Amino acid sequence: MDEIGRIRARIDAIDQDILQLLKTRYENAKILGQLKRRRGLATRDRQRERDILAKIQRASEKLDLNPRYSLQIFHKIFNLSLEAQREKRKPSFHKLRNKEILIIGGTGAMGQFFSRFITANGGTVTIVGRDQRRTLKTAEDLAVKPGRLLDAASSDIVIVAVPMKSTRQVCIRAANRMRSGALLIDLCSVKSGIADIIAVQTPSRIEYVSLHPLFAPDIDHLDGQNIAAVSYRTGPQWDRLSRTLTGSGARIIKMTCDYHDRTMALVQVAHHYALLSLGNSLKGWSGDLKTNSIKRTIATVRSLLGNWDTIIGIQQLNPYARQTRREFAKMTKSMVELRGPQVNRMRRDLASLVQKWSRKP
Amino acid sequence: MDEIGRIRARIDAIDQDILQLLKTRYENAKILGQLKRRRGLATRDRQRERDILAKIQRASEKLDLNPRYSLQIFHKIFNLSLEAQREKRKPSFHKLRNKEILIIGGTGAMGQFFSRFITANGGTVTIVGRDQRRTLKTAEDLAVKPGRLLDAASSDIVIVAVPMKSTRQVCIRAANRMRSGALLIDLCSVKSGIADIIAVQTPSRIEYVSLHPLFAPDIDHLDGQNIAAVSYRTGPQWDRLSRTLTGSGARIIKMTCDYHDRTMALVQVAHHYALLSLGNSLKGWSGDLKTNSIKRTIATVRSLLGNWDTIIGIQQLNPYARQTRREFAKMTKSMVELRGPQVNRMRRDLASLVQKWSRKP
Repeated sequence: MDEIGRIRARIDAIDQDILQLLKTRYENAKILGQLKRRRGLATRDRQRERDILAKIQRASEKLDLNPRYSLQIFHKIFNLSLEAQREKRKPSFHKLRNKEILIIGGTGAMGQFFSRFITANGGTVTIVGRDQRRTLKTAEDLAVKPGRLLDAASSDIVIVAVPMKSTRQVCIRAANRMRSGALLIDLCSVKSGIADIIAVQTPSRIEYVSLHPLFAPDIDHLDGQNIAAVSYRTGPQWDRLSRTLTGSGARIIKMTCDYHDRTMALVQVAHHYALLSLGNSLKGWSGDLKTNSIKRTIATVRSLLGNWDTIIGIQQLNPYARQTRREFAKMTKSMVELRGPQVNRMRRDLASLVQKWSRKP
Repeated sequence: MDEIGRIRARIDAIDQDILQLLKTRYENAKILGQLKRRRGLATRDRQRERDILAKIQRASEKLDLNPRYSLQIFHKIFNLSLEAQREKRKPSFHKLRNKEILIIGGTGAMGQFFSRFITANGGTVTIVGRDQRRTLKTAEDLAVKPGRLLDAASSDIVIVAVPMKSTRQVCIRAANRMRSGALLIDLCSVKSGIADIIAVQTPSRIEYVSLHPLFAPDIDHLDGQNIAAVSYRTGPQWDRLSRTLTGSGARIIKMTCDYHDRTMALVQVAHHYALLSLGNSLKGWSGDLKTNSIKRTIATVRSLLGNWDTIIGIQQLNPYARQTRREFAKMTKSMVELRGPQVNRMRRDLASLVQKWSRKP
């Protein structure tokens, strides 16, 4: 490509990245606006704006950018944020209005994520956690109601976001209190031995869908995110919730319990195992001479540490996990010599795999 | 943290990311401006601006962002770009003025990166490639001169950016033609058996520094990038070049040949080997149910494929590589059972490692 064309294509790609960040900023500002309204605070906070501009000024100077221009840009970005915070939401946005949703495990990171999502869509959230004080504190922070497992009786939807090992038991206990036509959701990362058992041990008068959000709960919005779904008993409640999720840009991928676990044995078990093994292998490294690419991998290892119980739970509970790890170990051993023909085959295989993988979102 | 505080911290982090992208856009615009000047084109191109705004409009609508605000933001971003393109560079920026620099392997991606960098810093670049037609085409695109290996005789600095296996031979041939006090640079990713040999087989009248840029050549600017340096014979030319590199925000890390290869056996050999093994293990995967984290890892695997010869060259030529791969394979096998005490130790180890690694840039 001509060099001018190359640089312009690069600038176009940067512009799309900037726009994605503006969208993310907008979504955060929207939630901030709702919180402020519920707490009776003013939308605009001049002191906060001055603080941001001071940070931009300092950072620009450090980056050798003329602050005159970056400050002008951020003044315009404030306008976008103000719109987000002021937004009178169209009724069509309130997809979950009049819905009572109980989130068990609501003090955990994924529980909080769903709490925010549901509140933003007009639903009324009650959260339950193991620790009473933490439940009260989190409920206050999120401006939702604190509750108890008993509240399952009066809920339209019950979302169970507890640790993997408790999921089955908590789901069954909650389900027994739920009224006819209500929806039970779990968010467990392993399905066999959990969702399939829940499906048969819960009353058939309630809807039941087992979800696996394929993202860590530190994302800002659902746009472009994948959610795996094993739908056992669906009805009007699930229709409403799934439309709310897809309406926010999430993709819901339906599958069987077994397909989920077989696929996750690759996407999660093999992937995390390779990174944990790498982490262990790097023990002798001081951390200097970082390449760009190892910086990215370390960020992923750090996020595994941040979700340790889930990561290890998957390694221990996915029925295909042990076999996957064993095959991974065999693979690494078989490649040690990296002979010429092996290398050429690997390149061809990898190139066609990467192409195949890129066809799916 | 209070929920309002949490969202504000998140917005602050997004703002820093936006600013980084503005810096990257600015650096690209600067190079674009120089190219336009050398080709006698006008700095401002209204049609190009309209094209960009049309793309922003479409993308905003797709993201459910009000284009009114995003277009205002991009109008201000254009001002920053115009400043970048118009910039009359201060003489202090022209750190390489009056320097003749020959880049052997100048048609490759890393050669082109250095070509742009040196031109942007006022140096005069001549490039040599194996293929004559491609050399002419690349030289025209980059607005530099095409040349031959013989031009080493009249160069102040010769940068050898050829494939790893040819580095030693090309360096020695070029060095024999270089004049007294000129600087020879190679960019090879393995140092033992290459740089140490070049150091003794080249005339002592020339400076010689062996560099390893710890980034792929698709970066936009050097700010924050690491470059490993084994400096065998330094003098005024290297002083100038290294000041130019650090002046652009790169960090030059000096070390011995052996330290380089031992460290890279972890940072590159173990890291790439883990990812290649993972890629091979995922053969049965269709590409659906992508998690956010596997999307990032696939992007890294894709970049390995994009630099395949270098990646495999490192695996084959780094003297510690085979041992590293063998230890990695042993590690993956020893962890297959993932027993409780092992898991707890791994978590502690990883947490303290990630903390240790984060102390270095």
